[in-house]
Amino acid sequence: MMKFEVTILGSSAAIPTVHRNPTAQVLNIRGRLVLIDCAEGTQLQLTRFGVSIQKISQIFISHMHGDHYYGLVGLISKFHLLGRQKELELFGPPGLIDIIELNLKNSKTRLNYELKFHPLSFGAPETIFEDNLYQVSSVPLKHSVPANGFVFREIIQPRKIRKDFISGRNLPYNILRGIKQGADYTDPDGKTHLNIDITTDPPVPRSYAYLTDTGYDPAVIPLVREVDLLYHEATFADDMEQAAREKLHATARQAATIARDARVKKLVIGHFSARYKEVSTLLNQAREVFPETYAAEDGDIHGVETYYG
Amino acid sequence: MMKFEVTILGSSAAIPTVHRNPTAQVLNIRGRLVLIDCAEGTQLQLTRFGVSIQKISQIFISHMHGDHYYGLVGLISKFHLLGRQKELELFGPPGLIDIIELNLKNSKTRLNYELKFHPLSFGAPETIFEDNLYQVSSVPLKHSVPANGFVFREIIQPRKIRKDFISGRNLPYNILRGIKQGADYTDPDGKTHLNIDITTDPPVPRSYAYLTDTGYDPAVIPLVREVDLLYHEATFADDMEQAAREKLHATARQAATIARDARVKKLVIGHFSARYKEVSTLLNQAREVFPETYAAEDGDIHGVETYYG
Repeated sequence: MMKFEVTILGSSAAIPTVHRNPTAQVLNIRGRLVLIDCAEGTQLQLTRFGVSIQKISQIFISHMHGDHYYGLVGLISKFHLLGRQKELELFGPPGLIDIIELNLKNSKTRLNYELKFHPLSFGAPETIFEDNLYQVSSVPLKHSVPANGFVFREIIQPRKIRKDFISGRNLPYNILRGIKQGADYTDPDGKTHLNIDITTDPPVPRSYAYLTDTGYDPAVIPLVREVDLLYHEATFADDMEQAAREKLHATARQAATIARDARVKKLVIGHFSARYKEVSTLLNQAREVFPETYAAEDGDIHGVETYYG
Repeated sequence: MMKFEVTILGSSAAIPTVHRNPTAQVLNIRGRLVLIDCAEGTQLQLTRFGVSIQKISQIFISHMHGDHYYGLVGLISKFHLLGRQKELELFGPPGLIDIIELNLKNSKTRLNYELKFHPLSFGAPETIFEDNLYQVSSVPLKHSVPANGFVFREIIQPRKIRKDFISGRNLPYNILRGIKQGADYTDPDGKTHLNIDITTDPPVPRSYAYLTDTGYDPAVIPLVREVDLLYHEATFADDMEQAAREKLHATARQAATIARDARVKKLVIGHFSARYKEVSTLLNQAREVFPETYAAEDGDIHGVETYYG
């Protein structure tokens, strides 16, 4: 499974509408599911859009505004009610765990799975997770409470050994591993096979950046440069630029400016204020700056193809 | 406005389905809106079913299981975001206020309206609210955490003075008030008019009882006797009676037994386990005991007519 795709579970700002839930997303990295933010109603959105919820292994929470985490305790309880045993990792502001524990204590719930909490700090970018599949780093955001964006980057995979080279040679594991990591191979006859002749390139690692909630802030540009997919909040249109500045939210045009200046491949805007009954104005204003922009709708899936450099 | 009606906002047990949200209801008492329980997603259900949310003046929470209160912090925040200034009264388990305050503290929110919390005790029925329109009393329930049901009873209204008697007499306020309260009236000519001749009866006070979550418990019968409308949980059908006993939930048949023995006028069952794809089995089993039973669906409105004794 080579998927790398984001499912939008909520595209509204703080006040939901019948068609837009507040913020949550699922990132599928080769079958590993990661939830990013968890507004009230997220568990139902997951069901509605056919996500296998017990496959979620990690949750990242950007900041402590209700429209980004009020569904978290419900989802954690649902995992429990459905008999989850697999560990769940949670990354977010330090205050989050107290809220969860207070809720569980009041309902006398002892989770039947391990909830492993990683408190995040703010103000400087950090690598907050890494395994052999992907790496996650935080991006400090400019908002009214401490907030982090997140960048998810696939780890480069080992090189692939050509089938016609392997067949009949019966090579031991340590040799195979060396070739996958780029080593040349000298065969029993003393002949050296250059790595480039006996392997093919792995796919190019893909990347996704999630930036919400935030005012316009060019400081993020080096942290999200050339990502395949950028989600950037666009709470307002041009008419509310002043309000955006005051409330530390971004306009669609500002989101597009970040996308253009960071030379990302594709931009998805969301976190739309409920004042906009339809978002074509925001989309048009963004596309004037960065044509490869899409407006998030609940249930949308934005995928990045596997490609070879 | 003489309404006395309940709108079902959620009819599922702990695990919601796409068609059933977990528990919440709005009781409309002559235009005064009271929310009873507040599962995750309640704010959206209120919008979906056209309830004027700022008219909600009181919220009653039965117990600290998530499917009865995980939407509360979101709703309290929504009131705030929409600019509410009117006081909100909240009645529920003592632990509730700590959870709300911890959430608000983390988002640095200072509500722009007064949230007046009334911690409830458990184990004995109490009158927990009363004004000139209605009275609310608690009903101890049999559940795995402390839980209260609630009975809402209209206060008997003053008698109505007949129009043909008033006209032309120009009676002072204190005399009118006395007649409305049942006094006879002696006119300037010394003639006594019996109250019964110059007034008509006020409507019969209506009543609604809400009992969830609870195991089967005949102890509630005297507390809900002859109410117009009873909502009683019916998590399970007969096939799960043993599970119901263990989990302190009721079967549909047990709910109907309470309704029959308390001689209520109408029963609505709800809080259905997600194991039942459709609830006709539960409804049929209840109707064998108490024919005037209805199965709750999200969005249903159950009203009690105004009537005169």
